[in-house]
Amino acid sequence: MKTFDMIVKGGNVVTASDTFKADIGIKDGKISEMGLDLGKDAEEIVDASDKYVFPGGIDPHTHMNMPFGGTFSSDDFKTGTIAAACGGTTSIVDFSIQAKGKSLKQTINTWREKSDGKAVIDYGIHIALTELNEKVMNEIPEVIKQGYQSFKMYMTYDGMRVDDGTLLRTLIKVNESGGLCCVHAENYYVIEYLKNKFLSEGKIEPIYHALSRPDLAEGEAAGRAIKLAKIANAPLYIVHNSCEASISEIAKAREEGYPIMGETCPQYLLLSEDNYREPNFNGAKYVMSPPLRDKKNWPVVWKAIKDNTLQVVATDHCPFFMSQKELGKDCFASIPNGAPGIEARMALMYTYGVTSGKIDLNRFVQVTSTNAAKIYGMYPQKGTIAIGSDADLVVFDPNIETTLTKSMLHENVDYTPYEGFKLKGYPTVTISRGNIIARDGQFVGEEGRGKFIKRTSPQII
Amino acid sequence: MKTFDMIVKGGNVVTASDTFKADIGIKDGKISEMGLDLGKDAEEIVDASDKYVFPGGIDPHTHMNMPFGGTFSSDDFKTGTIAAACGGTTSIVDFSIQAKGKSLKQTINTWREKSDGKAVIDYGIHIALTELNEKVMNEIPEVIKQGYQSFKMYMTYDGMRVDDGTLLRTLIKVNESGGLCCVHAENYYVIEYLKNKFLSEGKIEPIYHALSRPDLAEGEAAGRAIKLAKIANAPLYIVHNSCEASISEIAKAREEGYPIMGETCPQYLLLSEDNYREPNFNGAKYVMSPPLRDKKNWPVVWKAIKDNTLQVVATDHCPFFMSQKELGKDCFASIPNGAPGIEARMALMYTYGVTSGKIDLNRFVQVTSTNAAKIYGMYPQKGTIAIGSDADLVVFDPNIETTLTKSMLHENVDYTPYEGFKLKGYPTVTISRGNIIARDGQFVGEEGRGKFIKRTSPQII
Amino acid sequence: MKTFDMIVKGGNVVTASDTFKADIGIKDGKISEMGLDLGKDAEEIVDASDKYVFPGGIDPHTHMNMPFGGTFSSDDFKTGTIAAACGGTTSIVDFSIQAKGKSLKQTINTWREKSDGKAVIDYGIHIALTELNEKVMNEIPEVIKQGYQSFKMYMTYDGMRVDDGTLLRTLIKVNESGGLCCVHAENYYVIEYLKNKFLSEGKIEPIYHALSRPDLAEGEAAGRAIKLAKIANAPLYIVHNSCEASISEIAKAREEGYPIMGETCPQYLLLSEDNYREPNFNGAKYVMSPPLRDKKNWPVVWKAIKDNTLQVVATDHCPFFMSQKELGKDCFASIPNGAPGIEARMALMYTYGVTSGKIDLNRFVQVTSTNAAKIYGMYPQKGTIAIGSDADLVVFDPNIETTLTKSMLHENVDYTPYEGFKLKGYPTVTISRGNIIARDGQFVGEEGRGKFIKRTSPQII
Amino acid sequence: MKTFDMIVKGGNVVTASDTFKADIGIKDGKISEMGLDLGKDAEEIVDASDKYVFPGGIDPHTHMNMPFGGTFSSDDFKTGTIAAACGGTTSIVDFSIQAKGKSLKQTINTWREKSDGKAVIDYGIHIALTELNEKVMNEIPEVIKQGYQSFKMYMTYDGMRVDDGTLLRTLIKVNESGGLCCVHAENYYVIEYLKNKFLSEGKIEPIYHALSRPDLAEGEAAGRAIKLAKIANAPLYIVHNSCEASISEIAKAREEGYPIMGETCPQYLLLSEDNYREPNFNGAKYVMSPPLRDKKNWPVVWKAIKDNTLQVVATDHCPFFMSQKELGKDCFASIPNGAPGIEARMALMYTYGVTSGKIDLNRFVQVTSTNAAKIYGMYPQKGTIAIGSDADLVVFDPNIETTLTKSMLHENVDYTPYEGFKLKGYPTVTISRGNIIARDGQFVGEEGRGKFIKRTSPQII
Repeated sequence: MKTFDMIVKGGNVVTASDTFKADIGIKDGKISEMGLDLGKDAEEIVDASDKYVFPGGIDPHTHMNMPFGGTFSSDDFKTGTIAAACGGTTSIVDFSIQAKGKSLKQTINTWREKSDGKAVIDYGIHIALTELNEKVMNEIPEVIKQGYQSFKMYMTYDGMRVDDGTLLRTLIKVNESGGLCCVHAENYYVIEYLKNKFLSEGKIEPIYHALSRPDLAEGEAAGRAIKLAKIANAPLYIVHNSCEASISEIAKAREEGYPIMGETCPQYLLLSEDNYREPNFNGAKYVMSPPLRDKKNWPVVWKAIKDNTLQVVATDHCPFFMSQKELGKDCFASIPNGAPGIEARMALMYTYGVTSGKIDLNRFVQVTSTNAAKIYGMYPQKGTIAIGSDADLVVFDPNIETTLTKSMLHENVDYTPYEGFKLKGYPTVTISRGNIIARDGQFVGEEGRGKFIKRTSPQII
Repeated sequence: MKTFDMIVKGGNVVTASDTFKADIGIKDGKISEMGLDLGKDAEEIVDASDKYVFPGGIDPHTHMNMPFGGTFSSDDFKTGTIAAACGGTTSIVDFSIQAKGKSLKQTINTWREKSDGKAVIDYGIHIALTELNEKVMNEIPEVIKQGYQSFKMYMTYDGMRVDDGTLLRTLIKVNESGGLCCVHAENYYVIEYLKNKFLSEGKIEPIYHALSRPDLAEGEAAGRAIKLAKIANAPLYIVHNSCEASISEIAKAREEGYPIMGETCPQYLLLSEDNYREPNFNGAKYVMSPPLRDKKNWPVVWKAIKDNTLQVVATDHCPFFMSQKELGKDCFASIPNGAPGIEARMALMYTYGVTSGKIDLNRFVQVTSTNAAKIYGMYPQKGTIAIGSDADLVVFDPNIETTLTKSMLHENVDYTPYEGFKLKGYPTVTISRGNIIARDGQFVGEEGRGKFIKRTSPQII
Repeated sequence: MKTFDMIVKGGNVVTASDTFKADIGIKDGKISEMGLDLGKDAEEIVDASDKYVFPGGIDPHTHMNMPFGGTFSSDDFKTGTIAAACGGTTSIVDFSIQAKGKSLKQTINTWREKSDGKAVIDYGIHIALTELNEKVMNEIPEVIKQGYQSFKMYMTYDGMRVDDGTLLRTLIKVNESGGLCCVHAENYYVIEYLKNKFLSEGKIEPIYHALSRPDLAEGEAAGRAIKLAKIANAPLYIVHNSCEASISEIAKAREEGYPIMGETCPQYLLLSEDNYREPNFNGAKYVMSPPLRDKKNWPVVWKAIKDNTLQVVATDHCPFFMSQKELGKDCFASIPNGAPGIEARMALMYTYGVTSGKIDLNRFVQVTSTNAAKIYGMYPQKGTIAIGSDADLVVFDPNIETTLTKSMLHENVDYTPYEGFKLKGYPTVTISRGNIIARDGQFVGEEGRGKFIKRTSPQII
Repeated sequence: MKTFDMIVKGGNVVTASDTFKADIGIKDGKISEMGLDLGKDAEEIVDASDKYVFPGGIDPHTHMNMPFGGTFSSDDFKTGTIAAACGGTTSIVDFSIQAKGKSLKQTINTWREKSDGKAVIDYGIHIALTELNEKVMNEIPEVIKQGYQSFKMYMTYDGMRVDDGTLLRTLIKVNESGGLCCVHAENYYVIEYLKNKFLSEGKIEPIYHALSRPDLAEGEAAGRAIKLAKIANAPLYIVHNSCEASISEIAKAREEGYPIMGETCPQYLLLSEDNYREPNFNGAKYVMSPPLRDKKNWPVVWKAIKDNTLQVVATDHCPFFMSQKELGKDCFASIPNGAPGIEARMALMYTYGVTSGKIDLNRFVQVTSTNAAKIYGMYPQKGTIAIGSDADLVVFDPNIETTLTKSMLHENVDYTPYEGFKLKGYPTVTISRGNIIARDGQFVGEEGRGKFIKRTSPQII
């Protein structure tokens, strides 16, 4: 028998703090050795010379096959994770949405049915709580023990949103039980008021999606959730921060010493409110919540990524075909909310973050992988290149130059919001638990090979 | 006919910016002249030598004869304004509470019936909005024109609180119509959660009133109201700020240039959470909302008064006899909320503000009188000592030393929360529109002489 | 004998806090009465109807007949104060510069010789300390008692600058003695380094004056002086703040509760670094220190004036004819530092401050008059319109529209840096101690009538 | 030949971001492999089971054999580095002090003579610039190329301090040449003033050392140096920050995005001003500059270490025997400045940082090793446990409990300022380039084995 199942040879290994040249030896899906020269006694040798070897990307914010506004997001766990793999991402955490009247157990089961045997990379599952009765409350400790560590609440959206009392009680209960609460922070009432106002004035185009969800509505909700977390004496993670209004609230709380964390997404760094004004209903491509913001927020969000005000860059991947988007042709409020992004994340963050000098290589690894693993209880199984960790790796060639276009991507949707974006650097080999699952942007793995990730308590970072 | 109806002679006149020795000549209820020596040709001469002459105090936050929890606050417009007069206050603005199903017109009428012909000093009336349907919305411009310039909304209290949507719409409408919105800022859900939690644990004593209303619940609501005001592009006045949590939100918004204003009350400067622990249900005396806070907030509140983060010191005067307080003998949540304070305000602020060096004489005048007049549309009729202004004056002897005790006060209630407080300085003569209405702490005016103050648009300060 | 020497009739009187219509009766140079209608029994009646009556302007930063770089500023106490009077300013405080080896007594005498019998308005005298031996130290309490309350130190300029030790000792000594220290805050070494660098590269044009004195050099020195003042436990006034770099230091110290005050000048609100690039050596007109700054500082300086981070708008009036400026034709460092401004200050601040909505009428009075009087120990003799104060008044017509041009001004210099600036509002009558000294922009007063102002301890505001 | 020279077996390897169980294989002084199980084919096996394996400590602030006030610090490169090794530190960077009139080459040579063949661990050398003429200026690029990357300037101390001009020019020159400037930040003039004041009053005891060097004198100098660095557009590292006054300046500059970095030392976290009051001249033990501060600074300094306002915990190790301290028996200003600390640093930071929960294990590694390596151009040769790095390791037993006392330490001095401090955790084996040099707190290495570290450009972190 060979010493190793695989050797990734000669690459520049990058972790959250270190960069060094080493061979990586893989055995039984784990990183079993690293060395200056591990020889060639392996079933398979991956040549990584002149390339970076990063921990496989982790995208902790995806919505596969999610019901929304009478339709479903168009990627399921198969197509979505194939796209992820091709783009260098080896783990996701997807949101299971509690349907009204359903228990957490039922919610989880529904999602496990969507994912098990479908996903090609490993996956964790968050619970998106929409209803919190006593029964549900009592399930919380149990499901946390089962590896569902994280609970998101929506502060907006009819039918999903929770009030401040529910948020407060859940913060207390989840924290006591060793889990972590997350919120989608937008003020429901502000949005309702503005949405109805615009619609009553006949303003139906996609731009009004953005105008009805002002940055202050996000900042307000973020500030409120943070104060509830302070009262609950619990940590909090705010998803998809898009603007200074919310980021400044997180920064203030962190400066005061509170365990508040947050993520942003590439779209809030690279796209802007201006996109909604693209002609021919093209603006609908970008309809998501929170909406794209004024460009003046970009440097603020980059700074937050750099200085650790935000810890994670996720995608909120939630694609809809343009034919689905047409549901809102006559009313911006009926456009399904969401856009694709899972496949381009790593390359976009490398190109626009690292090569531009905004973040360094180690910070790139932190925000695309390590921090999500630590916060969401997957570390050190996931999120690093260390002895004993899962061999989830991406070999990344910093010299590839290309232009993003829909045809190179595997997301099950008919557009990419990043069409035409120049890239410098792209994944060439994606390895999940020691298996090569993508090579040169094509999926080469086995179907349904992904495994559920049983997650543990959060690290506060 | 005499040149003057009255001359206030030889006093040290103090305004919001100046201090100078002058005679003040009064004619037809107005200040008609000031001079080095106006002679003695007057119906009445008030000797003010060695004393200060301040603009009559304005207390813009009172609750006379207000229904609360099945009872009524124990001062009506007669007894309450007599107490005010004896303490050096010559104008109040009281809150008319919109009962469910009532129009603004009905609300106003109810309050005019309570006040007209009863009050002994002049009075304005705020509207406390509790329900905002289209009809009420349409009344707003009209009642503002009639002199009811200010609208308060409660963010807490069952049956009175409004949601964020109502708050937002009202902010927009009132501002468009030339009025000013005010809020009582506390988070309803946090309080409900904690209140129910304590009661379910059998914790019924007055201290749990404070513990169920944490400072962060106030800070959260203040921050939220401010963001709604920003979105509405409207000014906002936050009543009775008790703690750093809310004051810091106001400070931040003002620093950013937003027209956010606020008041505090003497109780938040001089009393603390510790008072709730007084034995024998004595803590009930201090049950008000927001509650008294940890002493560590005191310097923050004083600083805010000094540096103009807060502009006004009001009282939230809302007395209940101990027999009324007993409604909550077995449940802190049933104790009527409120305490007396209207009579001692001027002397307390002089003693603990001016003589202690925390604020200077001119700032004392600003926060006890001028600023309320400017913000609430009564200036320059009220709030200053200037040619043409109403002759509302208080002659104040800085050399009187006394100790506050219930028996010297005229509030219709059986205690004062400031029992035993030392005072240095006290009003000796109170003049309203040229009439002496109190002398040496006793009311000497005519009954029912007070007039309704028709108020105009706010000044932002 | 008439009741009054003069009545200023029917104007809108504006003080630091109030605005009201009143007649002002003047007797023996003082304001002896104000009233709704003082009748006409006066030697002279000034009709102020439809006009504002402001306290006469106070300019606490002027340099009359000052030696600088081998020449003298071109206005002496006669021409300079005539210009002041025509522009609505009724008091100045000029800097007497301690020549090397001279005592404070000698310094004062030199300046009293320049001013006494020359000035047409009242004048105080600051001492600009340049050398602090034991003898000088011992003179400090004595000269403060004589009315020379304020001591400026230069942190830059060869031959005048003091080191941090001198600054610290003086802060302590002056404060103990009841006076106030001021600093010109710029880092000497930074300027020397950059100046020599530019000159060695042949960069001699006026723009290099600005580039050799970066805003951070001012901010550094301001921050340093403030920390020395904290160590000395003394108040401090920083003259002519030009930029965010220094203003942010003052703001921070004030927020912390320290008694730090400061002024700016109209040039830092209305002119910019761009002016140095005017062709044909025109840029030399604006050579002053600190230099004009990038326009991005303007809103910061306006905000500081509004929110009381800065209390005073002075001029640093220090004119030189273009023929004098030519001393630096071949070397920016030899251009005499200074520019005229005393005459236009009031009209500029009214037009660009009040009519633009940046500050209100009362704040205009504070920054152009009252605050300087309070800080520099002239209040309430100067700086307000109150019974017993000097009758120093300016009747100001808000409806005059004109364009500033050198020919309308009386400054003894051949240009104004504000050439072509539109004005809305201009003084029509200037009254000093009850005498009309300027009317419709022309001097009509007596020569040499100004009196020395004996100043007392500072108020901290 | 064995596969490895040494295997460190079964330890919990801790890096700046990761913690994992692994064997570490060492060959030719480098880490050549890591693995789950590297077998036993090695010359030497170090059992690390149940222990941590940290990167060897790096102390970038030491003064071996340094002349000060007529004497020399009592540790030379032999005794001092033996102490370091016993305490788990495997690299130091010592300050070569430029004597007056000496070139940089001479300065370096003097220090290489002190260190070469003496040190038992590897060492870099900083240059402490005290005189900057043209010749010295021209040497800067050359010595940086030779591996002397870092230049410290003193803002205080007669005979060593540089003025702001020198500091500015050096910041520019060193940055252009690829090096890094450091400063000792204290205001010379403030200290001189206070020192002379106290001495003139007969106040000679050690406590006056602290009182003559107030925290604001440090904060002022830090703020000044930072502004000079901004003007120079250069990074800056501030050594031994002791208090909020300086740390807040660094925090502000970092928040603005400037490359300002800093260190503190264990004494500023664990000792306080109170120590100077120990009787019998015991206070002299703690005489160092900056002095120990009021305890209220402790949480501020810990927070700065945690949130990366400060990146490094060094020691400023500079011991003097009590007999040397006696030079200042009659005058605090004559007490040699400095104290020992090199040996206890790792154990103190582990005990009081990690076990108390103030910092986590990875942050411990960052501040005791990795960050100093990155900032001072030694990374990745030093400062991490990665393939290819020098095998500088410390095996650390978290279960050892002991009490610090002089007799267990190897520093050549007769006291430790940490006498009696409880410790939880202590180094058991120290490995330098693959050699065991200390075991169980005793030096077991070869004499003079240390090598000069040629350092490269700084990383900004």
